[in-house]
Amino acid sequence: MVASDELSPIQPLRWEQGPDGPALVLLDQTQLPGAETELVCTSIPTLVDAIRRLAVRGAPVLGLVGAYGVALAAARGFEVADAAGSLANARPTAVNLSLGVRRAREAYESTLKDYAERHSADSGDAEDPQAFREAAAAALAAAQLMHRQDADASRRMGELGARLLDELVPGAGGLRLLTHCNTGRLVSGGEGTAFAVALALHRQGRLARLWVDETRPLLQGSRLTGYEAARSGMPYTILADSAAGSLFAAGEVDAVLIGADRIAADGSTANKVGSYPLAVLARHHGVPFLVVAPESTVDLETPDAEAITVEQRSAHEVTEFAGRSVAPPGAAVYNPAFDIVPPSLVSAYVLDSGVLVPNESQEWRISLPSVVQITDG
Amino acid sequence: MVASDELSPIQPLRWEQGPDGPALVLLDQTQLPGAETELVCTSIPTLVDAIRRLAVRGAPVLGLVGAYGVALAAARGFEVADAAGSLANARPTAVNLSLGVRRAREAYESTLKDYAERHSADSGDAEDPQAFREAAAAALAAAQLMHRQDADASRRMGELGARLLDELVPGAGGLRLLTHCNTGRLVSGGEGTAFAVALALHRQGRLARLWVDETRPLLQGSRLTGYEAARSGMPYTILADSAAGSLFAAGEVDAVLIGADRIAADGSTANKVGSYPLAVLARHHGVPFLVVAPESTVDLETPDAEAITVEQRSAHEVTEFAGRSVAPPGAAVYNPAFDIVPPSLVSAYVLDSGVLVPNESQEWRISLPSVVQITDG
Repeated sequence: MVASDELSPIQPLRWEQGPDGPALVLLDQTQLPGAETELVCTSIPTLVDAIRRLAVRGAPVLGLVGAYGVALAAARGFEVADAAGSLANARPTAVNLSLGVRRAREAYESTLKDYAERHSADSGDAEDPQAFREAAAAALAAAQLMHRQDADASRRMGELGARLLDELVPGAGGLRLLTHCNTGRLVSGGEGTAFAVALALHRQGRLARLWVDETRPLLQGSRLTGYEAARSGMPYTILADSAAGSLFAAGEVDAVLIGADRIAADGSTANKVGSYPLAVLARHHGVPFLVVAPESTVDLETPDAEAITVEQRSAHEVTEFAGRSVAPPGAAVYNPAFDIVPPSLVSAYVLDSGVLVPNESQEWRISLPSVVQITDG
Repeated sequence: MVASDELSPIQPLRWEQGPDGPALVLLDQTQLPGAETELVCTSIPTLVDAIRRLAVRGAPVLGLVGAYGVALAAARGFEVADAAGSLANARPTAVNLSLGVRRAREAYESTLKDYAERHSADSGDAEDPQAFREAAAAALAAAQLMHRQDADASRRMGELGARLLDELVPGAGGLRLLTHCNTGRLVSGGEGTAFAVALALHRQGRLARLWVDETRPLLQGSRLTGYEAARSGMPYTILADSAAGSLFAAGEVDAVLIGADRIAADGSTANKVGSYPLAVLARHHGVPFLVVAPESTVDLETPDAEAITVEQRSAHEVTEFAGRSVAPPGAAVYNPAFDIVPPSLVSAYVLDSGVLVPNESQEWRISLPSVVQITDG
């Protein structure tokens, strides 16, 4: 049961209480797989910059970064409301980031309020340092709770996804799964989302191959999923994103698994650009297409695809590589960070709380209280 | 009518008669767009290496390289049969390469034979240097004829394709065309294949935008099509291959135009990997998908997709960039150079000899004598 990965698990972030005060330490994902470099963040601008540069990225872990970021601001005595605003707006598409910020901020503010109520009779001092210490501790506790919940969610998604694939691809020996971008330990407080499903199958000896889309422009697939797969001892093969078509045509894909940055109330799923073409290919070839994400990625306040803001990123991500130009000077570039998979192309959503399958009418809404836990035995 | 490109046309190759004998001079496409470097080839191994490294690539121009290569061998007194064999096998998928080799070799051999017949009475000397001089001149003439025919073919494809788009996308103002890989002057003795259609529309003021897939792994789109589009003053935008899905979803693509490396007798089209996913996306969105290629790309001896050999290329094209590793050491890689678009996903084939459209049964064969020239008015 112990995979090699578990002997030295990848940690995308950790809270460190140093002699000079607390820090949030990030594994700089832009340097992987070549170097394992740590970024020690002791200020909010440093953290926001790390989020923007994608030194840390991936929906669930962004939630943790948001929460720990608020805890950092509180512990270091920065203006918490300002910090929360900067962090929540560092990237617009991921819902988890603002959710994490909100949870830690709520813990912080409710503790301050409670403290004031408890002490209003005897002191009435709104600037009591003890109040801020308790509030900072509450923000950190909220972040740490999210962290543990995230690890639990990964485990559930891994189990549910593996069981679902038994039903969707019956009788197959080893499964050949195609994935896009990066969804493992690096994006999570646990083993990730889509990657956690592949890892669960691998531990059961049922993963024949993980096909890893390189995921242009920033190559999170070849760099990061490749790194995670190699560390876990999984059979994996990297391909240019557009070579996935040939794999489908050759019947080499049993299922596609992706993560999600935001799932709207109607099931529209924003994920790394390139997810939508895979969903169309999967449908064309009758291959199951699964979205694997924690319940926290579902944003019931976003009704549909129209309401999702898709971040457009800088041209140089496409036109330059390692400082070398690969396009004419001044070329116009279309570089959306995400695309949106409509619910009609999704075979199932694997959430930590259960598995949702579309009904026949294809007109359904994600409604968490009525989740159909078809694989929860 | 004179586009800026025509003031200094890109020349992918030229025959040069130097003081030390003839040479085939190639524009090294691996160095574009950063540098315009020429490769002076005076031996067959140098030329074969240039073909393998993709210093010169693209179906029509490979035919010219094959023919000029045989002419070079003949002019420099190398063993012509050996040279022809090495050249024809330098890359397996492109049918034009072996076709060009065959045409020049036939010119060479038939001239030798004619010479022997003419002179058998008076000399009978099979080693007569004059025979070889005449045969070498014939091989060169065959290559030069192909070169002129190729330029004519480009012009015809440009005209036919532009007229066909009038029919397929009626009433549109400026057209937004999506293309993949590189199909302009760099691949041709003229203005190319799919790119020639975009250029014809541009000259008519009817091209709103050329969407340029970057075309991983070797980035022929951003590097080479970007270079050609910039030199031609066309409105163009580069995108990661997998971002094309978002453009389709947003209704931003009026038609897809690709070239072809080989078209089988049933219409199955081998082209740069990534063509097939675009064909599936185009079908899903009801967008016309056109294959633009000279008649010489149609290989009636290849019955169908099964009979097409798809070249698998080296892992390092995917795992390295500018000497920097972007994947874990030893990662397995799936790197097919081409994929195959089935005729059922092709709206029309724009050949230099006319336009072919599939019939309703979708069970048709390309049969050149009965080409349906629907747009030849």
